[in-house]
Amino acid sequence: MGGVVVQNIKRSDQSVIDRLAACGVATVHEAQGRKGLLASYMRPIYRGARLAASAVTISAPPGDNWMLHVAIEQLKAGDILLLAPTSPCEDGYFGDLLATSALARGCKGLIIDAGVRDVADLTEMKFPVWSKAIFAQGTVKETVGSVNVPVVCANALVNPGDVIVADDDGVCVVAREEAADVAEKAEARVAAEEDKRKRLATGELGLDLYKMRERLAERGLKYV
Amino acid sequence: MGGVVVQNIKRSDQSVIDRLAACGVATVHEAQGRKGLLASYMRPIYRGARLAASAVTISAPPGDNWMLHVAIEQLKAGDILLLAPTSPCEDGYFGDLLATSALARGCKGLIIDAGVRDVADLTEMKFPVWSKAIFAQGTVKETVGSVNVPVVCANALVNPGDVIVADDDGVCVVAREEAADVAEKAEARVAAEEDKRKRLATGELGLDLYKMRERLAERGLKYV
Amino acid sequence: MGGVVVQNIKRSDQSVIDRLAACGVATVHEAQGRKGLLASYMRPIYRGARLAASAVTISAPPGDNWMLHVAIEQLKAGDILLLAPTSPCEDGYFGDLLATSALARGCKGLIIDAGVRDVADLTEMKFPVWSKAIFAQGTVKETVGSVNVPVVCANALVNPGDVIVADDDGVCVVAREEAADVAEKAEARVAAEEDKRKRLATGELGLDLYKMRERLAERGLKYV
Amino acid sequence: MGGVVVQNIKRSDQSVIDRLAACGVATVHEAQGRKGLLASYMRPIYRGARLAASAVTISAPPGDNWMLHVAIEQLKAGDILLLAPTSPCEDGYFGDLLATSALARGCKGLIIDAGVRDVADLTEMKFPVWSKAIFAQGTVKETVGSVNVPVVCANALVNPGDVIVADDDGVCVVAREEAADVAEKAEARVAAEEDKRKRLATGELGLDLYKMRERLAERGLKYV
Amino acid sequence: MGGVVVQNIKRSDQSVIDRLAACGVATVHEAQGRKGLLASYMRPIYRGARLAASAVTISAPPGDNWMLHVAIEQLKAGDILLLAPTSPCEDGYFGDLLATSALARGCKGLIIDAGVRDVADLTEMKFPVWSKAIFAQGTVKETVGSVNVPVVCANALVNPGDVIVADDDGVCVVAREEAADVAEKAEARVAAEEDKRKRLATGELGLDLYKMRERLAERGLKYV
Amino acid sequence: MGGVVVQNIKRSDQSVIDRLAACGVATVHEAQGRKGLLASYMRPIYRGARLAASAVTISAPPGDNWMLHVAIEQLKAGDILLLAPTSPCEDGYFGDLLATSALARGCKGLIIDAGVRDVADLTEMKFPVWSKAIFAQGTVKETVGSVNVPVVCANALVNPGDVIVADDDGVCVVAREEAADVAEKAEARVAAEEDKRKRLATGELGLDLYKMRERLAERGLKYV
Repeated sequence: MGGVVVQNIKRSDQSVIDRLAACGVATVHEAQGRKGLLASYMRPIYRGARLAASAVTISAPPGDNWMLHVAIEQLKAGDILLLAPTSPCEDGYFGDLLATSALARGCKGLIIDAGVRDVADLTEMKFPVWSKAIFAQGTVKETVGSVNVPVVCANALVNPGDVIVADDDGVCVVAREEAADVAEKAEARVAAEEDKRKRLATGELGLDLYKMRERLAERGLKYV
Repeated sequence: MGGVVVQNIKRSDQSVIDRLAACGVATVHEAQGRKGLLASYMRPIYRGARLAASAVTISAPPGDNWMLHVAIEQLKAGDILLLAPTSPCEDGYFGDLLATSALARGCKGLIIDAGVRDVADLTEMKFPVWSKAIFAQGTVKETVGSVNVPVVCANALVNPGDVIVADDDGVCVVAREEAADVAEKAEARVAAEEDKRKRLATGELGLDLYKMRERLAERGLKYV
Repeated sequence: MGGVVVQNIKRSDQSVIDRLAACGVATVHEAQGRKGLLASYMRPIYRGARLAASAVTISAPPGDNWMLHVAIEQLKAGDILLLAPTSPCEDGYFGDLLATSALARGCKGLIIDAGVRDVADLTEMKFPVWSKAIFAQGTVKETVGSVNVPVVCANALVNPGDVIVADDDGVCVVAREEAADVAEKAEARVAAEEDKRKRLATGELGLDLYKMRERLAERGLKYV
Repeated sequence: MGGVVVQNIKRSDQSVIDRLAACGVATVHEAQGRKGLLASYMRPIYRGARLAASAVTISAPPGDNWMLHVAIEQLKAGDILLLAPTSPCEDGYFGDLLATSALARGCKGLIIDAGVRDVADLTEMKFPVWSKAIFAQGTVKETVGSVNVPVVCANALVNPGDVIVADDDGVCVVAREEAADVAEKAEARVAAEEDKRKRLATGELGLDLYKMRERLAERGLKYV
Repeated sequence: MGGVVVQNIKRSDQSVIDRLAACGVATVHEAQGRKGLLASYMRPIYRGARLAASAVTISAPPGDNWMLHVAIEQLKAGDILLLAPTSPCEDGYFGDLLATSALARGCKGLIIDAGVRDVADLTEMKFPVWSKAIFAQGTVKETVGSVNVPVVCANALVNPGDVIVADDDGVCVVAREEAADVAEKAEARVAAEEDKRKRLATGELGLDLYKMRERLAERGLKYV
Repeated sequence: MGGVVVQNIKRSDQSVIDRLAACGVATVHEAQGRKGLLASYMRPIYRGARLAASAVTISAPPGDNWMLHVAIEQLKAGDILLLAPTSPCEDGYFGDLLATSALARGCKGLIIDAGVRDVADLTEMKFPVWSKAIFAQGTVKETVGSVNVPVVCANALVNPGDVIVADDDGVCVVAREEAADVAEKAEARVAAEEDKRKRLATGELGLDLYKMRERLAERGLKYV
């Protein structure tokens, strides 16, 4: 049951990736029809990071971080590592040495449906991680997995080269083929929201701005 | 099964509310006989906020945030929104646009037994939220709920107009009718604690300060 | 079923404790053969604390914090309190008054497989706590427990006088008898990692540094 | 902070209670507007029990089952015990001795937002329990609570004398004042469902039976 | 954001499906390289059911079961319904009326990453369900979703027409294209296990049967 | 970091073990001072099993079941296997082949703080298992662990040769050195309970049987 490493994957244009980063998770998620969110338990190890990047995906056995070393060789500058264990696990697959190595390859961060450790160091290094847990539990290097294969990570399907958008709200995946289209829709939402934000800030009600009163009455809402 | 909006609710005196805010959650909870705490999973999206406010309550269907727009119209300056879904849900009902609207009405924050998003923006806006989850998951506006009805929120009963006290320790509800009495008792505790704190800081033991040694011996504690 | 307080416990040398603190949780955990970690749900109430200290252990009934007062008398300067409830509980056993008292005795912090409150005050006092929950729920003083007996805390066995190492990664216990040996091994790891960090920072791959390529091929990894 | 025992509570008519039992949890819950369900973690210790009964409510400290003895004296034949701890707890408050005592008073079962033990005995005795946990953990008798006061149990408000309906689907509370009305509506649902069940059993589709096709198209559903 | 219903999906041969059913979840999961398992929280509502069937997939909003009616029309005899909510939800989407309708279409059961109700009736009807929860909580019919689109269900990717294998161990999905191959491998495992079972039953040790002793020694295992 | 297998462990007398089995988990737990319970998530795969046995302990890496083969060789007739993973894991370490092998050595069951599979077969074989999860997820045989070393299992310390008592209420460990004493105390409890059961069954109240009324009044309980 040996693993496989796919060495050449397609990535989205950097300009598209940058536009998605600028829009943020909540907007991108809405723009692509409310899909692609990773589970809410995926939390950043520190607040304030916000990025988008192409995913180098890793399918790893529980408690075995060998494939992270393999995956780092596959990184191009601007990529992000994304690890899904083959069964639920909270072990600390990743720490400051691996981050040092990944940073040297231009890696922008890590999404891991498992644990991470050395978080004080990672925070100081400004290496952002979104993880299921912070846990110092060690791992082994005994069993191979795969790199750059499709994985299900925190209840979302991720293909290698898909765009990962991550910020304080969590993590969202955008299919590579749809990235340009989603970026356009997301930017349109940002523009539309700007106008709404101004009107709401003056005290105009959403009930009026979105013309909700009639429909609410139709659905039976009563004021007493 | 249409919903209802109760438009005129009674609130506590602002002075009582301010006194409760000054005492904080742990003290208020003790002062009212150790009741009224919301579940421990209700966590602030950022540290350092501390407030008390009258609750405008919302009973909302899972994954449907329509009633938040309705509730914002019912806010008076100094109120807090409190949302309980009718079944467990972690969706992101609330984000920066709704916060902008709520702030324009003088709203002091949000308590939500569900999810919230745009937390980077909310933090920057200094709009405090205590929630079950941070999750970008979108919601719909299809089904009506109710505003200013009694709700059970995170295992606590909240009536509209009850005083919500919230800080880094979590959230506590004080019944409107009992608020003045609780404020008095809470302030008495604060005063009493001040003296104890000084004596403990000098190294005096709680065993002596509270005269526990005899009772411990009666209950069978042995030193070896 | 009265409890017991063991008054004289052995502690590790302070120099050994200090060396363990310098190495941190992840390294110490590795150095002692990947054992002794407390469960990943044990989280610091604020980031940045890092310490090692001898444990004064507490076995307490659910929702009853009486034994904390008893334990504080047993503290020597530089010790840490460690509380394990006799059944799972999230109540707030500990707050700012107890912290004031503990600090006056030279206590360095608290590890508690239950809840803590007054966390804003504790943070300001720089009194570090690693806990299962933040919860203002009050406790009583009705039932005795024991102090300085062996306890299982968050799935780890802790004997009184064992060394607790805690930082942003979580909490690890080192048996008193093994502390000097573990400190030595941990320091060796730190030294060895320093060289690896430098080489990885230059872009050298872990695959080469650790000579993994041949073994990966043997285990069946294929590049496509 | 002593407790209180309310000795005389109002109950619904037995005939109303029996009618609610016949309808079952899911139907009663729908009939009263989808409210009153206890959390889904409340599970029966054995399958097949189905009942309705008036609640004798208990507010008890964590890990202290003293009030169960007090509550048993307040039981009338046909009542059910309902215990809500004042903070989350999974201890085994109740076992075969208490069940023997409760059965002797005509008690029909127990709803407990905590743990239960001796479940093999309780199953053999046909004493149904819906609980949060099965856990042998013992409790103490040190701190008083209250009997027949309003409680929030597993996220639902229960007043003494309210009707509890419980079966394999879980537990639902019906306010005493609304019980007769809810029974009538529930029976109407049962009758209406009988006709639908027959038609669906013949292969008629819900899409046609409920005339959903046009509305689905309006909402944008497309067949491809 | 209207939904879509894909009306014609490909299915595996019934003979292949039957062979997978005969092998069971654990064996099929091993045979396809330890992939495809749904999360361990997916539990059968009663013990003893064991089946394989082609999936008619449903993507449904939280708390809205409208699409189940739509999906039932798409069933062919021998299919199984599989529902994934678009955000985590435990509501009771499915009960005895829908089961009656599904049975009339030849449906073999339901896999639902959410709640189910009327479980006493479903058990009596011998309609097997594997679900995340048993919960009577009602749903609405307000928002459209999709039928026969790819979904991520309980952390596994399921395409319409994939083969679902389910028994007391849980649920496993087999890609339609791989089903025949997996069936062959699974049957080979069954055959191989039969011989091993006999030898182990006589007391032969796995250590000898699988010739593990030398490799264990190489990896450093010591007997004392 | 190779593992170790301790080949000769001490066991309690079979007569003591049998007496503990007859008393059951809840009584044994009380008799030894309310300690030794494994966490409440440890549930039997089928109801009705009740046993006591000497523990052959296993410390195993996450997702690696190699040590089970090693441990089976160490079994004596009447022993029970007890596995604690070195980090939290729900994988299915154990199935019908291992059960066949264990049964051939006279093994009485399995306690596992992880997952188990083939539960339909295990149930038919009457091989009882108490586990954290039922999960078909496969494991590897790559990393050694240890057999017959002290482990912390589901938050309880277990030494090899300790007596495990297990029934529908869960699992309790009794230290080998204390087993005879605990058996005596447990039998005394059973005898004492028999008399109480008879008196309670006639309707005598616990309030009177245990003479609680005065003490309740002292603690402040009021009847209204």
